[in-house]
Amino acid sequence: MSDRTELDEIGEFGLIERITKAVELKQKDTVKGIGDDAAVIDRGDYYELISTDLLTENIHFDMSYTPLKHLGYKAISVNVSDICAMNGTATHVTVSLAISNRFSVEAVDELYAGILLACEKFNVDLIGGDTTSSLSGLTISVTAFGRVAKDKITYRNGAKDKDLICVSGDLGAAYIGLQLLEREKQIWKENPDVQPDLEGNDYVLERILKPEARIDIVELLEKEGIVPTSMMDISDGLGSEVLHLCKQSNCSARIYEDKLPIDATVSIQAKEFNMEPSTCAMNGGEDYELLFTVKQEDFHKVNAMPEVKIIGYMEDDSQGARLVFPQGEEVEIKAQGWKSF
Amino acid sequence: MSDRTELDEIGEFGLIERITKAVELKQKDTVKGIGDDAAVIDRGDYYELISTDLLTENIHFDMSYTPLKHLGYKAISVNVSDICAMNGTATHVTVSLAISNRFSVEAVDELYAGILLACEKFNVDLIGGDTTSSLSGLTISVTAFGRVAKDKITYRNGAKDKDLICVSGDLGAAYIGLQLLEREKQIWKENPDVQPDLEGNDYVLERILKPEARIDIVELLEKEGIVPTSMMDISDGLGSEVLHLCKQSNCSARIYEDKLPIDATVSIQAKEFNMEPSTCAMNGGEDYELLFTVKQEDFHKVNAMPEVKIIGYMEDDSQGARLVFPQGEEVEIKAQGWKSF
Repeated sequence: MSDRTELDEIGEFGLIERITKAVELKQKDTVKGIGDDAAVIDRGDYYELISTDLLTENIHFDMSYTPLKHLGYKAISVNVSDICAMNGTATHVTVSLAISNRFSVEAVDELYAGILLACEKFNVDLIGGDTTSSLSGLTISVTAFGRVAKDKITYRNGAKDKDLICVSGDLGAAYIGLQLLEREKQIWKENPDVQPDLEGNDYVLERILKPEARIDIVELLEKEGIVPTSMMDISDGLGSEVLHLCKQSNCSARIYEDKLPIDATVSIQAKEFNMEPSTCAMNGGEDYELLFTVKQEDFHKVNAMPEVKIIGYMEDDSQGARLVFPQGEEVEIKAQGWKSF
Repeated sequence: MSDRTELDEIGEFGLIERITKAVELKQKDTVKGIGDDAAVIDRGDYYELISTDLLTENIHFDMSYTPLKHLGYKAISVNVSDICAMNGTATHVTVSLAISNRFSVEAVDELYAGILLACEKFNVDLIGGDTTSSLSGLTISVTAFGRVAKDKITYRNGAKDKDLICVSGDLGAAYIGLQLLEREKQIWKENPDVQPDLEGNDYVLERILKPEARIDIVELLEKEGIVPTSMMDISDGLGSEVLHLCKQSNCSARIYEDKLPIDATVSIQAKEFNMEPSTCAMNGGEDYELLFTVKQEDFHKVNAMPEVKIIGYMEDDSQGARLVFPQGEEVEIKAQGWKSF
């Protein structure tokens, strides 16, 4: 018998590292391959950005409570978000679908209505794709393309000591939305006559079902003349993403718990689920907000930006990433984001 | 109850047509969206080509007889083939995988060994992707990028009356390879002690399991100074592809049955399966050879090209595509390629 190593022994990040090590880049216009939010190709006057995501049923979405139009919208939005995370502007997308024949033409129309709505909203052209049948669930593969000026591109590895750590919008809402949907699904499974009780939760539900790529933040940074020193989007949870920035920038970080931007409805709902709101913000994931660092000299500019909050700063000590509580207690940040395997 | 239209009522091409109609292109650098082998974006000095394919288990491949290394190789090869079909040169790929936990790390290594072997062979950089878990089968999504000089790009819609129809390599072998594998699988299922009898069939098996993108043909065309008037790759079978060229170029076509390039082993095996070799060539699919048309004045050049055969010519009558037999009988060509739904 040959040795067998299970995928969950090395995890998604371990697998990506393994693949990255095996890859050799030869094309002279390849600026950046695997390892950031998007790959980077030199197009002479500017950089082209390429990012791709694969969404699979029952892993990334649950058809029992996900409207198809929202799902289509989200598939585009999360890919455009990756282009934003490089400080770029998305321009084109391709969309491939594997669909089982339990889908009707009308259902596929709904999915595309969401895809095209997002294309219009984010000003990207749908230029291609592949459609095929599937013997099991729905799979959606989106590749997004964008561009960024060479002096504006922002990687994960540029953060320096004393840089301010900023996030856009608020965090934890998508996670609470997901908990609500899962709770109502369980109730419905036990008693199909009970109607789901989702009233008054529009905000958190929209955050999980129909997240918005923050192209407005990228535009605002441009307008304010700020080029972040590092940036990524928050898909796996703030904690996990801060660790990525630290690792790739070779820094440590201090995040202040009382600075985390959390919507009031999230705080209330978190208590109902017996959770700390800051835990939802740190580990929830799927918020698709932007996490970025700026130089201290940009403090006044970012401090004045609407929907951007300074939550901490980078350090060059070896203490790793810490979450600092109001009383001064410090806790090491550990990744608790999505586990793919 | 709302009306429900089944996907197989409109088929893959019907679905693509439906999507294409709904799409609006706004980016001024989008030259060609959905509808050819690859999308085309204007990069100033040249055109960028983008093509994407989604391969799903038990639809596109059967893990019971597909070595993972071959599968990885094929996933890259068929996408590079789409770039070739635009007369372009592939430069980069992204690869996304949805994998179930029945796969070991060693199995994923095998898959990537094939992917990276193909990247080396076709001189493309693997620059990104996404890896995720799957609750069911393996899904592979590849997007390939390439470039082509603006005066060399070849679409499906440029064929004109009297243009010569050419194909590279030979046809029908992949189909015969698939029949052999399916036959041995059935025998094995009925009696697991019987070893598969595949000896002496290396050529047809390699054609289905590890097809080669014809980058050599694109180089040869360049060297000979030939720009085809139309081109596409043969994935669904020659008959289906000839119909695409006719439809998009608004022409009809005459293909000569005795000119079809068929390997001797294919002819022999076809008889064993009680099939006409030319039927395998016309309807088999998965050969990933190039089908292209050239002007009559290029006759001597293409006639002298190794591994290229002239099989007929385009016409501007309204008779549609015909297969002409040696005795003069003509049969209308109908698509009998892959049905996705």
